Amino acid sequence: MAKKVAVLAVNPVNGAGLFQYLEAFFENEIPYKTFAVAETTQIKTNSGISLQTDDVVANLKGNENKYEVLVFACGDAMPKFAENADKIFNQDMLEVIKTFDDNNKILVGHCAAALLYDNLEIGKGKKVALHPFIKSVVKGCIGTDEQSVVDGNIYTAQTENSISALLPNLLKALK
Amino acid sequence: MAKKVAVLAVNPVNGAGLFQYLEAFFENEIPYKTFAVAETTQIKTNSGISLQTDDVVANLKGNENKYEVLVFACGDAMPKFAENADKIFNQDMLEVIKTFDDNNKILVGHCAAALLYDNLEIGKGKKVALHPFIKSVVKGCIGTDEQSVVDGNIYTAQTENSISALLPNLLKALK
Repeated sequence: MAKKVAVLAVNPVNGAGLFQYLEAFFENEIPYKTFAVAETTQIKTNSGISLQTDDVVANLKGNENKYEVLVFACGDAMPKFAENADKIFNQDMLEVIKTFDDNNKILVGHCAAALLYDNLEIGKGKKVALHPFIKSVVKGCIGTDEQSVVDGNIYTAQTENSISALLPNLLKALK
Repeated sequence: MAKKVAVLAVNPVNGAGLFQYLEAFFENEIPYKTFAVAETTQIKTNSGISLQTDDVVANLKGNENKYEVLVFACGDAMPKFAENADKIFNQDMLEVIKTFDDNNKILVGHCAAALLYDNLEIGKGKKVALHPFIKSVVKGCIGTDEQSVVDGNIYTAQTENSISALLPNLLKALK
């Protein structure tokens, strides 16, 4: 049976990244639910389009056991993460990511995803694909120049432009 | 100066396709406006996410001269196009596409875009990239197995998974 996926979408989110995951899940009959990393389900893409997620991250917290996989859809919210790190929705996001990893569930993400994992001391000694700008910033994870990397429960792509390289392995794991 | 782009989004639209164009335009400072091929600006992605476009296609009709490029973002509305061909928004879409071509403006699209062009007798004798299922259906255009093709004013990609192959040439033309 296909694994159930929770998808985190930051605000703003890179729409090309988010929807490469979602359309692939849809086409492969993999069940998913989207959660805004925001106070409401109304968020925007980097490109300025308003969209509505199914729910907000606050309601994923405590319900992590309903899902077997967590996707982190990166976006222009991330370069400003430090100045918003104390927002409740960001704190909830970090807790949710930690809980998925604590239960050894699959973590998926591109671009700055690996930096979040690294800050949470997730993926220690595991190779990751990540944005070239942050390759030298991660400490516990092993930054690479790969387009995509699968190492244990961590599935990462360098940017939204390399999610297509990650999808075949990811879909195989989810089906 | 960058060319102004009008983006048609059918309902439902493939989000991976739509947002690969939009995020690339955003990152390259190419001005764009999105138009739903629908009665309202509230449409859905194939994957079921509600999003809001800037305007509807009815308001692009008669205002084509404000734009130099037309993008057709394909989606699951298209397999059912025949049964909805008489809807005003679809008639408006066809008129708009024809007007852009009549003025020799750039037409961009993936998947079934070339079939629409072909039905409108656009792109006669020009090579196109298009979904493999419809390669043999086009009559005036020359269907190919290419990931992406630029022939004159017609820029096409085989599916949403090959837009990345089209983008470098497209962005060069738009900047």
